[in-house]
Amino acid sequence: MSFETEKAAMARLRGMMAEDGTEAVLIGPSASFRHLMGRDANLTERLVALLVTQDGAELIVPRLQAPLYATHPVDLMVWDEAEDPVALLAARLTELGVSVLGVNAEFWSGFLLRLADQAPQVKLRPARALERLRAIKTEADIAGLQAAADAIDRVWAGFLAAVPVFTGKTELELRGVIRELMVAEGFSTIAWVDVGAGANGASSLHHGSDYVIRQGDPVVFDIAGLFGGWNGDIARVVCAGEPGAEYRAAYDLLLTAQEAAFQAIRAGRPASEPDRVAREILSDAGFGENFTHRVGHGIGLDVHEEPYLVAGNDLLLAPGMVMSDEPGIYLPGRWGMRVEDIVALTEAGPQRLTQSPKELVIHG
Amino acid sequence: MSFETEKAAMARLRGMMAEDGTEAVLIGPSASFRHLMGRDANLTERLVALLVTQDGAELIVPRLQAPLYATHPVDLMVWDEAEDPVALLAARLTELGVSVLGVNAEFWSGFLLRLADQAPQVKLRPARALERLRAIKTEADIAGLQAAADAIDRVWAGFLAAVPVFTGKTELELRGVIRELMVAEGFSTIAWVDVGAGANGASSLHHGSDYVIRQGDPVVFDIAGLFGGWNGDIARVVCAGEPGAEYRAAYDLLLTAQEAAFQAIRAGRPASEPDRVAREILSDAGFGENFTHRVGHGIGLDVHEEPYLVAGNDLLLAPGMVMSDEPGIYLPGRWGMRVEDIVALTEAGPQRLTQSPKELVIHG
Repeated sequence: MSFETEKAAMARLRGMMAEDGTEAVLIGPSASFRHLMGRDANLTERLVALLVTQDGAELIVPRLQAPLYATHPVDLMVWDEAEDPVALLAARLTELGVSVLGVNAEFWSGFLLRLADQAPQVKLRPARALERLRAIKTEADIAGLQAAADAIDRVWAGFLAAVPVFTGKTELELRGVIRELMVAEGFSTIAWVDVGAGANGASSLHHGSDYVIRQGDPVVFDIAGLFGGWNGDIARVVCAGEPGAEYRAAYDLLLTAQEAAFQAIRAGRPASEPDRVAREILSDAGFGENFTHRVGHGIGLDVHEEPYLVAGNDLLLAPGMVMSDEPGIYLPGRWGMRVEDIVALTEAGPQRLTQSPKELVIHG
Repeated sequence: MSFETEKAAMARLRGMMAEDGTEAVLIGPSASFRHLMGRDANLTERLVALLVTQDGAELIVPRLQAPLYATHPVDLMVWDEAEDPVALLAARLTELGVSVLGVNAEFWSGFLLRLADQAPQVKLRPARALERLRAIKTEADIAGLQAAADAIDRVWAGFLAAVPVFTGKTELELRGVIRELMVAEGFSTIAWVDVGAGANGASSLHHGSDYVIRQGDPVVFDIAGLFGGWNGDIARVVCAGEPGAEYRAAYDLLLTAQEAAFQAIRAGRPASEPDRVAREILSDAGFGENFTHRVGHGIGLDVHEEPYLVAGNDLLLAPGMVMSDEPGIYLPGRWGMRVEDIVALTEAGPQRLTQSPKELVIHG
């Protein structure tokens, strides 16, 4: 990300802080830090955190790391090895007269509890403005997510071309091929490559094993990673030979549920609605107990972030949000299936970023 | 780690909780979780946390992950995708009558702030008992740390044998050789392999580059990683040809400072003392401004943990503590040096776990 991008993110954050009355936000090492600073911070026992107010941005940083931030447009609050950085921060908050401080979700409690002790007048709150900033993507952000989705589509197509027959191969072999393709494609991080064949596909805890794939086994694939700073994520099913009528019928139903959830991704509707819509279709067909997870999650700098498409989340969907749409059916001891696309909500409605075909593939 | 080890750790934790009057401790995904459960937990937006009281241990876990803990001796508080796990936890704390809850340092603030809202009667505190549990190693723990130190000694010896001439090689080439040796030796994680030649060695932010090593350059190496569940960490200096009298004199001084810090690692003395002792020696020789970091850190399941050997830390050293002893001298624009060993404090006094020789090595 360029400096202009970070500056724009900082300006958008301030706008959102103004809207919800947040005076100051504190951001430790996290994707949000990367968003605002254009670089990762070291997540260790040495406190590094960015303090953003309407008037400025100051970085608390150990002296050893200060040179890393020399070219950044923030003031530095440098602390020495024998100093207490929390005391420094508490004093600065008092000086600034901050009474409510938003904090990023991943900030370490050890620092937070010490801050609560040392600046008791400051009310500590989750930094909602930060979550909103991250949930609403800019056009440039969506272009980044589209590039990640395109890359994952290329990996998937390359994998299907590279391995035309699954029978006799192990899950870990297939996983290895996909991982190599991701590295070759330029993914900087592999978040996961899950491969579950036959009954293994019925467990979302199964990441891959030396199980040898048999003729007729359905295989569930879930692939995610960071490409050019943005996350891609996709799930597809391939069958090692004809899986039978029951599986085909369930798969058609799953695609119907996925499409219904996709259509329910509309501005102004709650984030719970796509989940409700997909769940109703699967429940009506008797698979209510077999759709064991939420229908989707937001995606961006983190592979999971708001908006979570789950019952109870009354966050309203808005243009600029990008999320997965991934219903699944899991029959313990028998088989599983999950189909996942990444969807951007635009002014014109929902648009799929991943484009890999979804016809049931038979790979002998 | 075996189940017996985890059970013993849980019993020791309860002893320390009793000593400092902590009723209950909450432990999210972290090395402490691994210590008590014998396995890592997934660190995500889905809350996983272990609640330990004198009478029991309960694990808050999303239903999708519950099968991972089926064989563990803890009660499960399973939450469904659409449930609020923090509400579940708050209700349980109320039921148990917990008024003070210790929390592990790395626990996410997002969860903690919601818990503070939902269980306002519970005082949240850093889990000191947990830090003490981790700081005081058992004999078995020290055996694990000795094995990690032995492994890193073998890597270092193997590296010196494999690359007898440095001149003309890049820092990244040397780093690559060390990384390969660590993998071959069985390190499960490489925390870092830092290589800084010539003036690059004067910066603790320099991890390695394509700088080509010249005749006479001193090269600073710092190597750390996880071996058999425990961390090893070592730093040494090698010169690509004779570095000159000034460097040799400073190096002798550094070894004197390191030995003095080693001798100051004594039961009943504050953790700040080894730092003070080493700093005094280097300051008296005019290098006060050039020893830019604390003299050491505790090491165990995490590569950095208590006891931190730094000014201001009045934690008393005790038998069972294991820590690094690593003074350094850094002359900006010229050269750097750091020598690091891992030291266990036993009833008989300090004992070095790393044993690699420290005579100044000349590698042409």
